Amino acid sequence: MIIVKIGGNILDNPERLQSFLADFAQLPGPKLLVHGGGKIASAFGQRLGITPKMVDGRRITDAETLELVTMVYGGLVNKQVVAKLQALGCNAIGLTGADGNIIPAQKRPVKAIDYGFVGDVAGSESINVAALEAIIEARLTPVFAPLTHDSQGNMLNTNADTIASVLATALAPKYKVQLVYCFEKKGVLQNAEDDNSVIAHIHTEKYKTLKEEGVVHAGMIPKLDNAFAALQQGVAQVLICEAEALTSINTARYSGTTISLN
Amino acid sequence: MIIVKIGGNILDNPERLQSFLADFAQLPGPKLLVHGGGKIASAFGQRLGITPKMVDGRRITDAETLELVTMVYGGLVNKQVVAKLQALGCNAIGLTGADGNIIPAQKRPVKAIDYGFVGDVAGSESINVAALEAIIEARLTPVFAPLTHDSQGNMLNTNADTIASVLATALAPKYKVQLVYCFEKKGVLQNAEDDNSVIAHIHTEKYKTLKEEGVVHAGMIPKLDNAFAALQQGVAQVLICEAEALTSINTARYSGTTISLN
Repeated sequence: MIIVKIGGNILDNPERLQSFLADFAQLPGPKLLVHGGGKIASAFGQRLGITPKMVDGRRITDAETLELVTMVYGGLVNKQVVAKLQALGCNAIGLTGADGNIIPAQKRPVKAIDYGFVGDVAGSESINVAALEAIIEARLTPVFAPLTHDSQGNMLNTNADTIASVLATALAPKYKVQLVYCFEKKGVLQNAEDDNSVIAHIHTEKYKTLKEEGVVHAGMIPKLDNAFAALQQGVAQVLICEAEALTSINTARYSGTTISLN
Repeated sequence: MIIVKIGGNILDNPERLQSFLADFAQLPGPKLLVHGGGKIASAFGQRLGITPKMVDGRRITDAETLELVTMVYGGLVNKQVVAKLQALGCNAIGLTGADGNIIPAQKRPVKAIDYGFVGDVAGSESINVAALEAIIEARLTPVFAPLTHDSQGNMLNTNADTIASVLATALAPKYKVQLVYCFEKKGVLQNAEDDNSVIAHIHTEKYKTLKEEGVVHAGMIPKLDNAFAALQQGVAQVLICEAEALTSINTARYSGTTISLN
């Protein structure tokens, strides 16, 4: 089972997206896609007169932003990806965490910052695996938008990396799961300025050192934390690579980052 | 198996919608919901500066209107309905015709009018029943937005009544299907001015007479044509009633219109 997370920068680029989806459609065996948001939500937000809310540099999901992301991520992006995958012969089914109650979440508690309608997933044990497995067993390919729900009638905006990680973990008891984070860089970089300085392999000790040395930059830490959490809970392998590397992941040509516990 | 189509006027009224969804959630046995659009798409269209396109009084779905309805019907409305049903204990799963390739369609051929990105469904034999049945067998309740796809990567705007009818017909060989059109009136009216002039029963001959007498007004004819087409193809019963009548449909209290062949 291959679970792929595709980042917003690819979604924003029609040619890269089409090429990525063609590669994804050809992956053998059961697979699942999680997509992020991308700039299209901001663009529609601007047209709708919704100004992005920021507090201390953090994005806030207020009520109208929640409507916006539910429309754009759950509707436009998700269904366009599904329609394109269908055209590529991949029997995709677009979902959010509310569908089949697959990913129940809780509105993030208000502490220093009120993030608004942002969903935190308690853990993989809260995932409704039965519904997801039934869909996979029917040879459908789930495509998840980064949205969950609070079981009280509200959708919640949720980090796509977290969704990929929690789904991978929830499916690990049943499938041998590879979790692949595809983004615009070639992998985790030793030197952020040098696109070719990919770190081929990161294990637990190495990650500790990289953090201590300040090599891993801030934006990468949540992704790597998610990766190690998934590995600790049974996911077989986590890969971080550029979208174009997807077809090479189980070959000697693979040139992205591989994450493992040891 | 109960297949319910809910019209836009109910979707636009939060109290009626909530009450309707509570009734729907309590229906026993397998069920399926198809929702229309409602004014919310027009409202967002206005905010986005998208002016409704009309030719000879018919709505045209141009490229930006297709984006709009994909967002609003497939994202906002569909996921809000799903989240609300989840809160009511109904394990809903939001779908379009592109998901699971359940409803492949064709872009309507250009004749006198170019309707744009509007999908025509060839018939119930084109429905991917296997995917739909797998979802229903997993005890999930499908909630369909009025969208299909062209199998070439594009979503298509599609009439919700047609979707309800074609799904009912496709499921008829496996289930005893009741098809219920819920809208804002109490049923098919003898006199459009009198909300209480509900015609209790319409069979084939009666329908012919009603059309000849001009009793059935223009907007109702496609709905009734759909109903008779569904009955001719094995759907057990078609009901047309107000949303509030949903809980009474299999009781002596039912006061809407019942459609049958004889």
